[in-house]
Amino acid sequence: MLKLRRVAIDARHENLAFLARDCRQYRPEEFEALEKIEISADNRRILAILNVVDDPAILKGDELGLGERAFRHFGMPEGALVEVAQASPPQSLEAIHRKLAGHVLVEREIDAVVRDIAANRYSKIEIAAFLVSSAGSMAVEEVLALTRAMAKVGTQLSWDGGRVVDKHCIGGVPGNRTSMIVVPIVAAYGLTIPKTSSRAITSPAGTADTMEVLARVDLSIEEMRSIVRRERGCLVWGGHVDLSPADDVLISVERPLSLDPREQMVASIISKKLAAGSTHLVVDIPVGPSAKVRDPEEAERLRKLFEYVGAATGLTLDVVLTDGTQPVGRGIGPVLEARDVMKVLRNEPEAPPDLRERSLFLAGRVLEFDPRLRAGEGRDHAEKLLASGDALAQMERMIAVQGPSRALYPLGQLTREVPSPARGRVKAIDCYRIARTARLAGAPTDKGAGVDLLKKVGEAVAEGEALYRIHACFPADFKFATEYARGASGYTVAPD
Amino acid sequence: MLKLRRVAIDARHENLAFLARDCRQYRPEEFEALEKIEISADNRRILAILNVVDDPAILKGDELGLGERAFRHFGMPEGALVEVAQASPPQSLEAIHRKLAGHVLVEREIDAVVRDIAANRYSKIEIAAFLVSSAGSMAVEEVLALTRAMAKVGTQLSWDGGRVVDKHCIGGVPGNRTSMIVVPIVAAYGLTIPKTSSRAITSPAGTADTMEVLARVDLSIEEMRSIVRRERGCLVWGGHVDLSPADDVLISVERPLSLDPREQMVASIISKKLAAGSTHLVVDIPVGPSAKVRDPEEAERLRKLFEYVGAATGLTLDVVLTDGTQPVGRGIGPVLEARDVMKVLRNEPEAPPDLRERSLFLAGRVLEFDPRLRAGEGRDHAEKLLASGDALAQMERMIAVQGPSRALYPLGQLTREVPSPARGRVKAIDCYRIARTARLAGAPTDKGAGVDLLKKVGEAVAEGEALYRIHACFPADFKFATEYARGASGYTVAPD
Repeated sequence: MLKLRRVAIDARHENLAFLARDCRQYRPEEFEALEKIEISADNRRILAILNVVDDPAILKGDELGLGERAFRHFGMPEGALVEVAQASPPQSLEAIHRKLAGHVLVEREIDAVVRDIAANRYSKIEIAAFLVSSAGSMAVEEVLALTRAMAKVGTQLSWDGGRVVDKHCIGGVPGNRTSMIVVPIVAAYGLTIPKTSSRAITSPAGTADTMEVLARVDLSIEEMRSIVRRERGCLVWGGHVDLSPADDVLISVERPLSLDPREQMVASIISKKLAAGSTHLVVDIPVGPSAKVRDPEEAERLRKLFEYVGAATGLTLDVVLTDGTQPVGRGIGPVLEARDVMKVLRNEPEAPPDLRERSLFLAGRVLEFDPRLRAGEGRDHAEKLLASGDALAQMERMIAVQGPSRALYPLGQLTREVPSPARGRVKAIDCYRIARTARLAGAPTDKGAGVDLLKKVGEAVAEGEALYRIHACFPADFKFATEYARGASGYTVAPD
Repeated sequence: MLKLRRVAIDARHENLAFLARDCRQYRPEEFEALEKIEISADNRRILAILNVVDDPAILKGDELGLGERAFRHFGMPEGALVEVAQASPPQSLEAIHRKLAGHVLVEREIDAVVRDIAANRYSKIEIAAFLVSSAGSMAVEEVLALTRAMAKVGTQLSWDGGRVVDKHCIGGVPGNRTSMIVVPIVAAYGLTIPKTSSRAITSPAGTADTMEVLARVDLSIEEMRSIVRRERGCLVWGGHVDLSPADDVLISVERPLSLDPREQMVASIISKKLAAGSTHLVVDIPVGPSAKVRDPEEAERLRKLFEYVGAATGLTLDVVLTDGTQPVGRGIGPVLEARDVMKVLRNEPEAPPDLRERSLFLAGRVLEFDPRLRAGEGRDHAEKLLASGDALAQMERMIAVQGPSRALYPLGQLTREVPSPARGRVKAIDCYRIARTARLAGAPTDKGAGVDLLKKVGEAVAEGEALYRIHACFPADFKFATEYARGASGYTVAPD
């Protein structure tokens, strides 16, 4: 048996284990041919990737080291006696090999694969093999089985009686922070909307990152339940309640491969909503040349897949296509986006009209899940609740019960304005480049970093007039972002 | 700029980099969305996977750590000032995305992919994506382009005038150590056979592991050249002369995925032979139910692919199918296999007849590349050179010039005999299970570990009589191997 030691080293999305090269009990070479080892003590076990250590100051011959993430998940104290074994291949590996050979998998096989993925039994390269062999060649029945399996493996929430509504945007358009306006409106109306959101993966801000500027978002399930009982709505971070552990693992491989297969996206979104106990969902698909979905035909195919899986799993869906041709609102990055959201909720005259209008449209569609409303009546109800200040009051109560943010997040003080190269009118703004600039500037890690759009599509601009302002908190980021923006602003300006 | 520090941690086949979480110049979060970072100083640069350190004893805020492997490759001293940047995606990534989308790649694209693989620009998951999208769906032209590209990126050897012969077995049958008998025979005959071999990847011994029991195998190219000039043959480790760096990277991903695509195998073998300067090659394809190639139809398809690529690259091929139904010889593991090889070369009466016969057959086919011999005459020449002791004398000279092994490798002293459950005759021996038992016992890391087969197919056995003996050097390995053998011996014994 080896003594457990915490090694303060971490890698994103991977459990790390450390064994001394001079360990006499197990020799690291025994394990080298394998991707993962299994560490066990009492009834606990964890799979981790092995690293070999040649420095007794980091690890001694009678110790087994776990990196921060693995140590936390394993949950045993330092000094505990542990055993090490070669991790046996996941039992569902045969199903993955069948998929590699071009077969269609049955529900039982997909179930087993998803359970093993969620239990972290697969290496990243095995997951890549599964995703690549599945991408573009999944039968709709497989997508359905994948959705059901993913919904089952994580936490499952349930709510007292009646319909539980939600909205979800597939992403890809920066500044599109409508949830923080839709949820207060819908909760103020009286429907139950326990919203869980993600943090940014490749974007400069997720709803959870932006809400965190105003309130705590890492709530426990019990806190979430008590808040929803009182306020009908909440805006919390879904990662904390572990709704779809398999999805988190899949995303960690899709992201660096720039794979975003349609089938996987639908399974991911619907499984999370099922696990969260939703019964009715508005899905927002922005369509635009630099958005995730480029044209209406692609959007229609995606809509049909959503509807098929929704119908088969008992989730009532309303899939809407929206304008994804430019960023929404003005601010990109958590602090700037929170500013825009609060301007809309406070009915300030300079609130971004596109963010307001889009939020009212989506809130209206959600309200129409109420059988008492007729089609087309939702938006008016939404607008009244916004104009009356009811939505603002609802947001303020939700912030109060979630716990107002204790930190103050100032806007990044390193700023640079990016000027228009010519006089004319803004014809297009590239969503991808603006998002990347904001991310290089430090968003979402630095909540005050990002991009403030001073001009939107259709607005007139003089030569040298500022198109947008970059905000950063640290010099290295400021340099990365300004250099990237100098390469190409992301704006197309043309003479009238 | 950060100060370079060597961190005594290593992971197989991966460059590791370390950055302190409290590093003020770069923040680890900036890089988290990416798989690799690029570290540069002077004109050197290296790509590595980022780990984040929370312990100033391991790494301080003004330092950039490199793991052992990366530090060695980078080649700068500790304390050198280095810069860190996000690794830009390899330029050939677009070609991989085209392959993912089902396209056939052209030579220029495959060239670029192979160059980037060899330069370590890809992450393992990107390589997995490439392999999976290629496996079973590569056009023969793509296999040819892959072969040519792989042969070009590494070291290229050339030899003075005339034909340069070689033999290669695709593997999968334990104990199949014919090269160590074929090379001395062929060199004694007078043909040039500069043999480079691999170390074991998933098997209990590669030819390089077994030859190392007798002599040094990590020779420089210059040493190799001078030995071949004098002795016409050598038996060295190919990994040391870097003949196919791209192949090494591909194998590191194929192995844990248990992927062994035919196309990849052909490209790998032929590219290495081209790089090694061979002009004539005998390819040995063992066929058997537990070998790599299971049936004659599969063997024929493989033979045709070898012949297509060989013809197009100017390598003269003789592809032979051999018996792969059971292990060859008696010993499995470096010391035991070296014992069998030397028994054959010394013409000892108890030398394994199957190893002897197989080696003579293959040596005969190689000798027939000599235009002075007629088809069918090779084996007789080979047998004469073996029986006369010329082959043994040739092997002894090769050992002397390569440098006799300075270490003594004793046979593992922890032994257990695995008994037959019944009286009868051995009907079958599972190559895979026997190899795995030997590997669990410690081979090839411990050269004295392995399995000694006391009975072969067709031999009579009493109930309780030993089928094979396990040898191990360390208690943990001994336990792994004996427990595995207890689960199933790998032998089928049936009544006469």
